Amino acid sequence: MKCLIIAAGRGSRLKHNKPKPLVKLLGVPLIERVIRTAIEAGADDFFVVVGYRAEEIENFLKELSRKLSVPIKSIRNERWSELENGYSVYLAKDYINEPFLLSMCDHIVDAEILKKLTQCRVEDGSVYLAADVRKGFEFVDIDDVTKVKLDGDVIVDIGKALKEYDAYDMGVFYCSTAIFDALGEAIREGNSSLSSAIKILGKEKRARVCPIDKGFWIDVDTEEAYKKAERHLLETLKKKTDGPISRYVNRPVSTFLSRFLVRFNITPNQITVFSFIISLVAAFLISQKSYLSLAIGGILAQLSSIVDGCDGEVARLKFLSSDYGAWLDRVLDRYSDGLIILALTVHVLHYNFSLTVVVVGFLALLGSFLVSYTAIWYDELIKRKNLKVFRIGRDLRIFLIFLACLFNIPLLILIFIAIIMNLEALRRIIVVY
Amino acid sequence: MKCLIIAAGRGSRLKHNKPKPLVKLLGVPLIERVIRTAIEAGADDFFVVVGYRAEEIENFLKELSRKLSVPIKSIRNERWSELENGYSVYLAKDYINEPFLLSMCDHIVDAEILKKLTQCRVEDGSVYLAADVRKGFEFVDIDDVTKVKLDGDVIVDIGKALKEYDAYDMGVFYCSTAIFDALGEAIREGNSSLSSAIKILGKEKRARVCPIDKGFWIDVDTEEAYKKAERHLLETLKKKTDGPISRYVNRPVSTFLSRFLVRFNITPNQITVFSFIISLVAAFLISQKSYLSLAIGGILAQLSSIVDGCDGEVARLKFLSSDYGAWLDRVLDRYSDGLIILALTVHVLHYNFSLTVVVVGFLALLGSFLVSYTAIWYDELIKRKNLKVFRIGRDLRIFLIFLACLFNIPLLILIFIAIIMNLEALRRIIVVY
Repeated sequence: MKCLIIAAGRGSRLKHNKPKPLVKLLGVPLIERVIRTAIEAGADDFFVVVGYRAEEIENFLKELSRKLSVPIKSIRNERWSELENGYSVYLAKDYINEPFLLSMCDHIVDAEILKKLTQCRVEDGSVYLAADVRKGFEFVDIDDVTKVKLDGDVIVDIGKALKEYDAYDMGVFYCSTAIFDALGEAIREGNSSLSSAIKILGKEKRARVCPIDKGFWIDVDTEEAYKKAERHLLETLKKKTDGPISRYVNRPVSTFLSRFLVRFNITPNQITVFSFIISLVAAFLISQKSYLSLAIGGILAQLSSIVDGCDGEVARLKFLSSDYGAWLDRVLDRYSDGLIILALTVHVLHYNFSLTVVVVGFLALLGSFLVSYTAIWYDELIKRKNLKVFRIGRDLRIFLIFLACLFNIPLLILIFIAIIMNLEALRRIIVVY
Repeated sequence: MKCLIIAAGRGSRLKHNKPKPLVKLLGVPLIERVIRTAIEAGADDFFVVVGYRAEEIENFLKELSRKLSVPIKSIRNERWSELENGYSVYLAKDYINEPFLLSMCDHIVDAEILKKLTQCRVEDGSVYLAADVRKGFEFVDIDDVTKVKLDGDVIVDIGKALKEYDAYDMGVFYCSTAIFDALGEAIREGNSSLSSAIKILGKEKRARVCPIDKGFWIDVDTEEAYKKAERHLLETLKKKTDGPISRYVNRPVSTFLSRFLVRFNITPNQITVFSFIISLVAAFLISQKSYLSLAIGGILAQLSSIVDGCDGEVARLKFLSSDYGAWLDRVLDRYSDGLIILALTVHVLHYNFSLTVVVVGFLALLGSFLVSYTAIWYDELIKRKNLKVFRIGRDLRIFLIFLACLFNIPLLILIFIAIIMNLEALRRIIVVY
């Protein structure tokens, strides 16, 4: 599927020293987000109309095309400052002669919405606009958004100033090539806005909406919208399978860190390894005899558990998720778990060298491991059946170890982990059954 | 899809006190195997023509219908001893008026073959016979098999006595209702065999073959064929992901045991739990100080590892496989692994109570866990990419522990496991990458 993106305007309301399409939102330039999302929705051939600071954007797109292995063709609009956005679309008429996706460069839209939109039938020469029918959708800037007045699903009027309207223009269209004819007509009449062409098609009942009532989208037009978008994307990092400590302690801190980390050229796997190294240092310190060492080790263990959330977050924010990355993270987590429990056992053995302590340590490791081992299927089940369960997992375990190290009760926590984790494993055997 | 099964004949060449359809092959009656395989291939409504010892078979089918939750209707053929098998098929004409699968009750055929057969287009009033085109297929009884002479894929002659032929009749057909008209015609002419009807349709180019050149099938007609079928089914229990000890030591013994176990009403999960209990006893014995106890514990550990293969085998042989069963097996294996390594560590600590031994024991446990943990994805990868790797896994680990217990070198094996298993986990991290 071909995808046309309009990135010619100045976008002066978002204060920034870069051209707007290249402004990074959580580490990823707006236009890259739009392109990556369109790829997820099935687009595989891109045309981008550029005008303001065209060369910078063209260079970026060349590099991006290579990185993503998809063709991205830049089309220059030399008249971007005098004509409206419809003229930019019109310039693509010689490149596209089949139904295509049309998107503004600054509208962040869930891939699911694009998928729904591209299921519309445009073969009969019509144009579909994704339109939000939710009243008071929190991410809409009511003064600035383009409104749509409908008759059924046919667009009868469109514009920012409409007093009466039925839906909000989401800035993404699925078009037949009829749009080019309508644009030609509008431009000849002196109206070079996309809305003018839509109105012309609407009169022939060929401009319709694809009504959207769920999912996220936003027009990143102002500083405020930019911040809202950032907040929302960070919000989506929470997972259904997050345990209580993850949810209320680790996640808030790790998303704060991730927001910072995305600015740099750090890969998720590097973060995974870094978090693992912290936990190795933690294990070493915990295994020493002194309380001070134990306490610092405990703090580092908890820190490692927090940083461990960042790899996945950065991966999702920067579209860098990989099966291998998720796998490596899991495997190294198991090593880190095992070594920290070994370290705790060794620490206790310094004071109380008995077979009982060894057995308790082993059972703590066994239970912890079984909880992680069963998690692979258990989490799947929780997600699929949308179960509400108090999830006893790694987040809670490490947090309790952290507290126990601070309060100098390492044997107690080993006994506690040995009991709780094995009981949890047993519970999962029953729940899954 | 409807499925018609012919089970009216006497089948006297297979010596048995039960009627042939009820003769168990590895714990499952022949007709149940045929029905379950047809279900796998998409059938969901069954008709079985019975004659010889009809009542016994009918009672069995009633029970089976309830167990499998599929309708199974018995049709009585009172003239089974005077007419041939075509008459049995003919009796189903009032029940079936759409394309259907037709199978003999004593032909064991891979579900994949049935799936291929039912992809043939019979809407034009034709009949397709699954026909094996492999010369010298080892499971064919060349004197007894029905042969087919072809012109392209059209059947020009069919019979046991053909001197020249191109393929073997596999005893399964995908039929349009045209088969009933042809049978009526054949029966009026005094020929009540299915082959006569096929010849009639062949003349009109409406009897064709679906050529099969891979997969297993057999006509369980004689004692010899019965044994061959049994051997083959046991052979299929080997897994691509079996490690070396599994393949050459455990699997031969466990399939021998499974062949015995399928005769009883024992569920796979019961075998899983039984194997786990053996390993608990093994762990207890190994943890004691005496050599004798260690040696017996080692033997029991290896025995448990062998019995652990039986649950899956019995499940597959008796169509009792379940996700939960496979999962429970894995989870209990981890406990058994952990407890045996703990027991070995405790045994060594009786003689050499040092921190080093504790650390070695922990690392052995950690490495073993990681190998099992990574196996979930690693085995998937091996299967998908068909990799040939020397698989270091549980089978080898338990076998080495068994040997070490016999030779009284528990510390050495702990050190060895700690090194090898952690290296293997590391190797997997690299291989998966």
